[in-house]
Formats: sequence, C-alpha cells, structure tokens
Amino acid sequence: MNNFIYHNPTRIIFGKGMESETGAQAALLGKKVLLHYGGGSIKKNGVYDKVTASLKEAGVSFVEMGGVQPNPRLSLVREGIALSKKEGIDMILAVGGGSVIDSAKAIASGVLSGGDIWEYFTDATKVIERALPIGVVLTIPAAGSESSSSCVITNEDGWYKRGCGSAAFIPRFAVINPETNFTLPPFQTACGCVDIMAHLMERYFTKVENVDLSDRLIEAGLRTMLNFAPRAIRNPLDYDVRAEINWTGTLAHNNLLDRGRIGDWGSHQIEHELSAIYDIAHGAGLAVVFPAWMRYAYKNHKSRFVQFAVRVMDVDLSFDNQDRIIEEGIRRLESFFQSLGLATRLSQLDIGDDRLREMADKCRSAGNVLKLTPDDVYEIYKLAL
Amino acid sequence: MNNFIYHNPTRIIFGKGMESETGAQAALLGKKVLLHYGGGSIKKNGVYDKVTASLKEAGVSFVEMGGVQPNPRLSLVREGIALSKKEGIDMILAVGGGSVIDSAKAIASGVLSGGDIWEYFTDATKVIERALPIGVVLTIPAAGSESSSSCVITNEDGWYKRGCGSAAFIPRFAVINPETNFTLPPFQTACGCVDIMAHLMERYFTKVENVDLSDRLIEAGLRTMLNFAPRAIRNPLDYDVRAEINWTGTLAHNNLLDRGRIGDWGSHQIEHELSAIYDIAHGAGLAVVFPAWMRYAYKNHKSRFVQFAVRVMDVDLSFDNQDRIIEEGIRRLESFFQSLGLATRLSQLDIGDDRLREMADKCRSAGNVLKLTPDDVYEIYKLAL
Repeated sequence: MNNFIYHNPTRIIFGKGMESETGAQAALLGKKVLLHYGGGSIKKNGVYDKVTASLKEAGVSFVEMGGVQPNPRLSLVREGIALSKKEGIDMILAVGGGSVIDSAKAIASGVLSGGDIWEYFTDATKVIERALPIGVVLTIPAAGSESSSSCVITNEDGWYKRGCGSAAFIPRFAVINPETNFTLPPFQTACGCVDIMAHLMERYFTKVENVDLSDRLIEAGLRTMLNFAPRAIRNPLDYDVRAEINWTGTLAHNNLLDRGRIGDWGSHQIEHELSAIYDIAHGAGLAVVFPAWMRYAYKNHKSRFVQFAVRVMDVDLSFDNQDRIIEEGIRRLESFFQSLGLATRLSQLDIGDDRLREMADKCRSAGNVLKLTPDDVYEIYKLAL
Repeated sequence: MNNFIYHNPTRIIFGKGMESETGAQAALLGKKVLLHYGGGSIKKNGVYDKVTASLKEAGVSFVEMGGVQPNPRLSLVREGIALSKKEGIDMILAVGGGSVIDSAKAIASGVLSGGDIWEYFTDATKVIERALPIGVVLTIPAAGSESSSSCVITNEDGWYKRGCGSAAFIPRFAVINPETNFTLPPFQTACGCVDIMAHLMERYFTKVENVDLSDRLIEAGLRTMLNFAPRAIRNPLDYDVRAEINWTGTLAHNNLLDRGRIGDWGSHQIEHELSAIYDIAHGAGLAVVFPAWMRYAYKNHKSRFVQFAVRVMDVDLSFDNQDRIIEEGIRRLESFFQSLGLATRLSQLDIGDDRLREMADKCRSAGNVLKLTPDDVYEIYKLAL
C-alpha cells in the first residue's frame, strides 16, 4: 500500500425530499448564488421549483444560468465566469448531473484564477488553488462529481476534452435525492451506471500490490452495480434501487477507494477523445472502450484481471487457464453492458475507422496497468470497432 | 435505505514516516498544544521523539500530559481540562490509541463547555456543540476514534463507562503510520482487531432493509480482518498487514458504513459494563460478548445472520436450515477469536456469575435487532459464562 492523504469534506445530504435543505446549506456559504443548470429538465421534474423555493426561504438571492450541454463547453464556462464577476456572485450552486457540476467547478475556479481558465486544463504546471464555494443538487448518478476533486471540460475550438483536478473543486455540500432520477430515460440511466462502474474499475486496475481492503471495497461497489443497474432500467420508480446506485456513484469517485493505490484511467482518456469528437454520452463511450482496453491490457497484469473475473463477475472456471478466466470475465462484462441496452462496439455507434489515428494522436497518455502510447490507443480503438 | 447526512472532514495522513507531518498540521490549528498520551510506550518506540521534533520544527509550543489508562478515567479528564484552561491551550494532540484519543476529546470539549463534563455523558438532553480542535497520531488500530464522532469515558465513582457523540469530537487530522504498531504485543493486536470487527458487526446487524451497498462494504471490511488479523499476530513486523488493519479500523468507525442504516450497538453496551467493573480490554470483552449476543438475538432477524454466515464466514450449508447456517457462522467467528489467542467465555477471564445482575441493571439500553432490557442483558451474560 502506498502512503496517502485522504480528505473529503463534502457534506452529503441524502434521501427523499432533501432538496429542501439546499437553501440552508447555501446560506452558510454565500449571499449571492449562481444557479447553474442544464437543458431545463429540472423545470419539468419539479427540482427547479423545490430548489428555488428553498433558496428564497433561506433568504439567498440568486442569478440563473442554464444551458449546460453534455460534455460541458468551455464557451459557456467563460460566459459563466464573466456573469459571476459582473453580478458579484460568491457561491455556485450546480443543479444537475456531472456536466452541470463540472461546468460549475470551472466557473467557480475561473472567477478567482488569474489568466484564462483553459490554461489550467492544458498546462500541467498550473494548479488551481482557489475556487468559490460549490454546492450541488444532484439529479443524475454517474460522474461522481458531487464530491470529487475532478472536472472535465470540452473546448469546442479543436474539440479537446480535458480534465483537471483540485481540492478546491470538492463541493462543500451535495444534496442527493434518488427520487429525482425517476424521470431519467433508460439510456441515460444505463450510461450513468456504466460511468460509475468505470470509476470503480479504473481504480481497481492497478499494479500497486497489498491493497486488499480497497480491492474488496471496490468489488462491493461493482457487485452492487451488477445487481441494481438492470433493476433501475426495469423499475425506474423503485426508490431503493435508485438509492443504491446514487450512493455507489458518490463513493465510486470521492477519492476514498483509491487511497494507497494508483488508478489506471487509460480507458477514460481513450473515451474522452470519442465523446469530444462524436459528442456521444461518456458512459456510452466507456461501454465500448472498457472491454477493448481490458482485452488489450490484461497481459500486463493477469492476476488482477483474474481476480476481477472471479470476485466481480463470478467466473467459476479452473484456475489452471488464466486467459480463459479473464476472457470470460470480459465477455460477461460486455454482455452486462449490452443487457442495459448499450452498444459495446464503435460500429454500433456508427463510428468508423476514419478518425481513429487522429483520436489516438490527440489522446493524453495515462495508465498504470498499461502506460498508453498513441499506438496502443489506436490498437484499442481497432479492437472496439 | 434511510435518509442520512454524511460529513467527515478528518484529514487522514497515512503511511510510513508520516509522523513528520504532525507539526505542520498542528500549526494550522493552534499555537499552544496539549500533548496527551498514555503510559509512556510512545517514549520507548520512538513516536514521542518524532512527534515532539515535528512540533518544534513547526514552531508549535506544547504542554505535556501523559498517564491515560485503558478505559480512560474521568478524573484525568478533569485534570486535563483544568491544566488546559490554566495554560491557555488552544488545541489537543492525542498520541496513542482509542483511550488517549477519547480522553483528549473529553478534555477538548470540557475546556469550552459550561458545567461539568460528565453531565454530557449521562444526560441525553445535553449536547456537546463545541470543542478545541483535536489532532491525532494513532499508535493502536482499534477504536476508530481517530476520525469518529464518539468518545467513551469511565467514571471511577461507581465505575460507569459511558459514551457520548458529537460532530465536534471528529478530529481535524489523524496521522496513521502502521510502523508504530510493530511493537504492539500480540494480545493488544488481537484486542484491537476484535474491536474493529465489532464496529463493523454493530453496523451490519440492523433491521433496516435495502442497504445492499453498505452491507457489501462492511463485508469487505470483515473479510479483510479475517485475512489480516491472524497474519498480524504471526508477523508483527509486516507493514502491509498492519496497513490493512489500520485502514480498516479507521473506515470501520468513521460513520461512513452505517449511512442509511441503524446499527445495533447492544454488544458494545453489554461489554462496557464488563470493562468498567473488571477493567478488561474492550476488545477482549467484545470477543466474549458478541458471540453470546448473536446466539441470543438472531431469532429476531434470521435472514441477516444467515447473510453474515454465508458472505462473511463462508458457511456453505444447505439454505433449507437457517438455524444451522447461523450457528455455524457464530461458531466460526468464535473459533476465529480463539485463534487470535482470546478468551470467548467469561469464565476464561475469571469472571463468575456473582455480579451479572448488577451489570445487567446498570447497562444502558440499546439495540436495533434486539432492543435490550436488563433481563436480556442478564441472559446474554449467562450465555457467555
């Protein structure tokens, strides 16, 4: 186990009707809030009304800025920064899923950072040290951004999707009411579940040894998702099912489960190029990329992929043939993604082989099990065709 | 799953040599520190020298107060409060295990609370809202007090051992270097491991349904302890073994694993009466009480005890006979405690039946699977004879 520091001060406020706590929490952090949201689904499902009523009741004034798109855009972030400065905003409240939260994080830091915010996403020597306090009302369990230190933004100028991490990004509070997921379409539910599983798997696939507790904690999360993701598709109004997925989604990405180990994150980088160029849902891209990455990378650390197959996917074949166990584990994972209604091949997403080399060359290197080169990324895309 | 709030801001600083961070962390919180410790083992194993050197290097002045005994005493807490007020202490640094940390918590709150500190441990209407900031250098993984909201103190006047909870008790930072456990005697290692397992099991045994993720997370902790506790006895100098136990011990009691559920805590109350009167180690008492409590309580919620036997203790008997599965699970747990060198019967601790009724009548009621009455407690003691 490696040395580590763990500090996650997000106050999680979880359960039925908890949106009513938003105003009281926001009032502790700011006087004038930027209320940031997406395409307006929160106005249809009642969340907007509950949150704004709670803010008003707590005497917190707010300025609204909706319009966040999936794969949130740098241009809107820049607008948000300008608006926040003009209005004297002192806190950002994100109401939505990962895209809205990440957009809010970039705005919150951009208001206090010198220079252009995009530099922090592209220049590894620049570190975000300050941000306005961020609060979250989560409506889609997926990105785990509600208590994470990470933020991913897409620059439309060249379609670069880039991530950035900072302790200042960790939200001060996150209100999570699983009831708000009842109206999510099955596709979005499925994509969210795959994103959660990917966050767990990126942490699971490591070359760091002697990490037994965190192995088992991650396996606990993955097995929970295997049980509950299909049930959320079948029974979208089952509160207890949605609750398990939400709580797993938060713990999958709040930095707890990779303490003492180094995650891989190769699949995330490979997927980012796909969703930047083709604007697909992140989870939909991960369902294609992850099995291909596993098939390409497993020879670098077979024991870990055997453990995944046995402990997570319940593969019960003789231990004499490791490759067979591993392949069966990957096949079951792929089949599971398909059972959620997702594609597991690029061709099923109408993505051909014409831009694979371009994406491979743009892809940021990453990886602990396998340190990716552009050629590796290219081969993984080909395996995913 | 029940609604819940989760907020644990302790900064965990984990790994080899991390004591050197103590001074820098303390300097963020105070100018004059009460350095609180136990019987002096930290002077033999080098921890005292490292911590004081780190404080000096960071320019933090400190006043020392050692002498904390296992089952920490109210009289020393009162001395600590008086000393802290006299010296103008603005932060308490606990260097030791759960007893030292709990003594530090009681002092930290006593300095700022009106009235006598013991009232907060006996009068449920009194709530501790403030405490001086608390830092920890942990030397014994067991109590989980290094990032918990709880505190247990023994009043020698009548030998009452009573617990109290407050968000103000949560330490601001905890330095955890598993190397400091290398010199722990096997008995103390074993007692610590049982305490950690008990914290997990108290949370596991609940009547709250639809708590699948936290079930699995707790099972992950328990299975880790089943694997590593015996190895720590056999190989006390194995860093990676000690590391797994430390990290499990912290997560077992930082309030994460019972979010959305209600723990039982009956066994803890029953054990508190034992260690208050007979001054035995808490973990040694739990190894006796828990199996007896399980045998007495399981009929109130059989499915949960079957799940424990199957998923934690790997019982592989036919599901047709639930009682047989449960009994085998309890037998294996008892046998595991014995394998650590611990007694599992009161008689093995030279405790007879003469004060059972007195302890049963003093015992605080608790329980979610079984709401304890004095008669229940009495019957459980008898089962443990």
